[in-house]
Amino acid sequence: MNYSFAPLTKNYASSAVRDILAVIQQGNVISFAGGLPAEDIFPLEAVKSAYEKVFASGKGSMQYGATEGFKPLRDAIQVKMEQKGIYTTPDKILVTTGSQQTIDLFSRVMLAPGDVVLTEDPTYLAALQVFRSYGAKIVAVKGDENGMDPEDLNAKIAEYRPKFVYVTPTFANPDGKAWSDERRQQLLALCCQHECLVLEDDPYGDIQFHENEVYRPIASFDHNQTHVVYTSTFSKSVVPALRTGWVTGPTEVLQMMIQAKQMNDLHSSSIDQQALYYLLRDFDLNAHIKLIRSVYYERMTIMRDYLNQVEPGLFTWREPKGGMFIWVEGPEHIDTAALLGEAVKKGVAFVPGAQFYVNEPKRNTFRINFSHSTPENIKLGMDRLMDVLTSVPVV
Amino acid sequence: MNYSFAPLTKNYASSAVRDILAVIQQGNVISFAGGLPAEDIFPLEAVKSAYEKVFASGKGSMQYGATEGFKPLRDAIQVKMEQKGIYTTPDKILVTTGSQQTIDLFSRVMLAPGDVVLTEDPTYLAALQVFRSYGAKIVAVKGDENGMDPEDLNAKIAEYRPKFVYVTPTFANPDGKAWSDERRQQLLALCCQHECLVLEDDPYGDIQFHENEVYRPIASFDHNQTHVVYTSTFSKSVVPALRTGWVTGPTEVLQMMIQAKQMNDLHSSSIDQQALYYLLRDFDLNAHIKLIRSVYYERMTIMRDYLNQVEPGLFTWREPKGGMFIWVEGPEHIDTAALLGEAVKKGVAFVPGAQFYVNEPKRNTFRINFSHSTPENIKLGMDRLMDVLTSVPVV
Repeated sequence: MNYSFAPLTKNYASSAVRDILAVIQQGNVISFAGGLPAEDIFPLEAVKSAYEKVFASGKGSMQYGATEGFKPLRDAIQVKMEQKGIYTTPDKILVTTGSQQTIDLFSRVMLAPGDVVLTEDPTYLAALQVFRSYGAKIVAVKGDENGMDPEDLNAKIAEYRPKFVYVTPTFANPDGKAWSDERRQQLLALCCQHECLVLEDDPYGDIQFHENEVYRPIASFDHNQTHVVYTSTFSKSVVPALRTGWVTGPTEVLQMMIQAKQMNDLHSSSIDQQALYYLLRDFDLNAHIKLIRSVYYERMTIMRDYLNQVEPGLFTWREPKGGMFIWVEGPEHIDTAALLGEAVKKGVAFVPGAQFYVNEPKRNTFRINFSHSTPENIKLGMDRLMDVLTSVPVV
Repeated sequence: MNYSFAPLTKNYASSAVRDILAVIQQGNVISFAGGLPAEDIFPLEAVKSAYEKVFASGKGSMQYGATEGFKPLRDAIQVKMEQKGIYTTPDKILVTTGSQQTIDLFSRVMLAPGDVVLTEDPTYLAALQVFRSYGAKIVAVKGDENGMDPEDLNAKIAEYRPKFVYVTPTFANPDGKAWSDERRQQLLALCCQHECLVLEDDPYGDIQFHENEVYRPIASFDHNQTHVVYTSTFSKSVVPALRTGWVTGPTEVLQMMIQAKQMNDLHSSSIDQQALYYLLRDFDLNAHIKLIRSVYYERMTIMRDYLNQVEPGLFTWREPKGGMFIWVEGPEHIDTAALLGEAVKKGVAFVPGAQFYVNEPKRNTFRINFSHSTPENIKLGMDRLMDVLTSVPVV
């Protein structure tokens, strides 16, 4: 039979790179390609103990729950938000199946085919896929190491009247960038002026390497919660298998997203939500986050020290101040998708950068992840990667 | 600020009845309104033990998982499907956050605004809401106690060229109906003839009251898995808090739904999926389903015996052969939404039937749930409900 799918499905992208990476899983390849947190420091005992408390609380805990999420968990998230300078209330917090579901539900209630979304460039691939799946036109705003360029943003908001601006201002995927405070405030001011929403995606904000630096979410400047929809997740700070994230923002937007979530899946696993509530109550998550920071920082420095050995000027990168990724730009004549083939032969993998771009892709870029591999494997993998990089001819 | 939502959000329905029912939760009201399974027989110890095995399996179990779902769970679902006469393979099984997510993802990949979906009338409210949220036009097919009328179905497929036909042929919500084998086969034959897909929603199929009766899923007649997309859930047979369901069907459809699921939430909680795998491996779920059947049957008969006391002809209903609901039709002059006000005053609640209808609603109908309340509460609640029903004047 001939299956006649909805026209918007033609915007669904099957990623060739994803197929390559799937193959890699099997072999003896050290992969810096994924975006996985470090398993070896997962707080397994704390998670286990939290689930035990759910089961000890009785059969009622196994029943259907509210679409908005488990109320005591939303209360705990409110406190967490307050620590980040975001003053909200539990009725403006929706628990989602990871922040990916926030991106999807928010897009669902906002976007019609032809609507414009402004983004950074490069930016989070899976967000681009979602926006495209709703038929949105994505327009990239120019930027530098401090964030979006306010002038270009202003011009593009005026020209395109976007439904929203999507940003990951703190340790972005893929390029690890962290915006300056000034740029954060400029973005918000422009969005307030033009009556435009901001979707602030903050999965990595907790993972900062230098204790004295302060990264204030854009949502923390949006004092009346009128313009910023903020999302984060416990996937990076607790464990990904929980698939638990949240979103907070303007009441009207949250109410609409709750209706969409009800149609989408009624509610996320309430066993997981209750366990997370007990974990946040009884486990020192902030101390654990400090551990994550120090472990990831150490791993990042190993990679950095290797990269410093490459001939100056051939490959360039910024040392990230947090997050999980280093973004590398090579000489213009190379295509890192081809280079990946070489790398895999040598037993190491990265993600070619082209797919993260909205506009003309820079095919000479790639992303490496430092959180998932052990220091030993990072050394082994970087030895192999250096072989590949140093074989690139200086034209 | 003025929030400009996507035009399709105007199809989102905020249910007035839901608001009433939310209020009920707080008071001293015995509610037959919800669709909740019986908490008192939840297999809490088995669930607890299954989670313990997940944590014992180590930190790797806490990592991100595959969008399709945990492979050993999909293998187990394949076996379960085989027991129902549905021969499929794990690569054609997608684990979802409840069967609600199946309905949503399938609609997302199939429906564009203006597309037609054929349904029974009355039918599952939350499915109607999903179809409407994608801008679909819903057309009801005539039916009787044996299922859809093949002649009307044939005419409406020819007239409307629907994207799919949505059915819950076994112990439907709200009316408890179970289709005859003949009607199931007639539906499939017509859909094959007209190249039309079937979405078979089967959350209640396991809960049958009479051991010797056989209810074959429509998907079991679709030998090459070309026309039927079948979904079910562990919410009713294990516990709802798991939010774990699945879908199986044609390869092309499943592949598209997997892409949609990846954008929607990457994957469902893999802690829950792994626990469910251990539970299916080590716990006699079929024996537990027998327990559910006998407990629900007993509760249903208590309600039935009360209803039998109402003056013959005033209220009519069918004794359900399974599932969780009795559907009652009153005299034509009554509106059960008004009657609900009376009932709540007396300390009992039901769901007025109007919202389950696609066409002109029968406002003289209501649904009562027999699975959730204990026998004692069913008696107490039915005493109250009988007061309400016997006060209805015979015009």
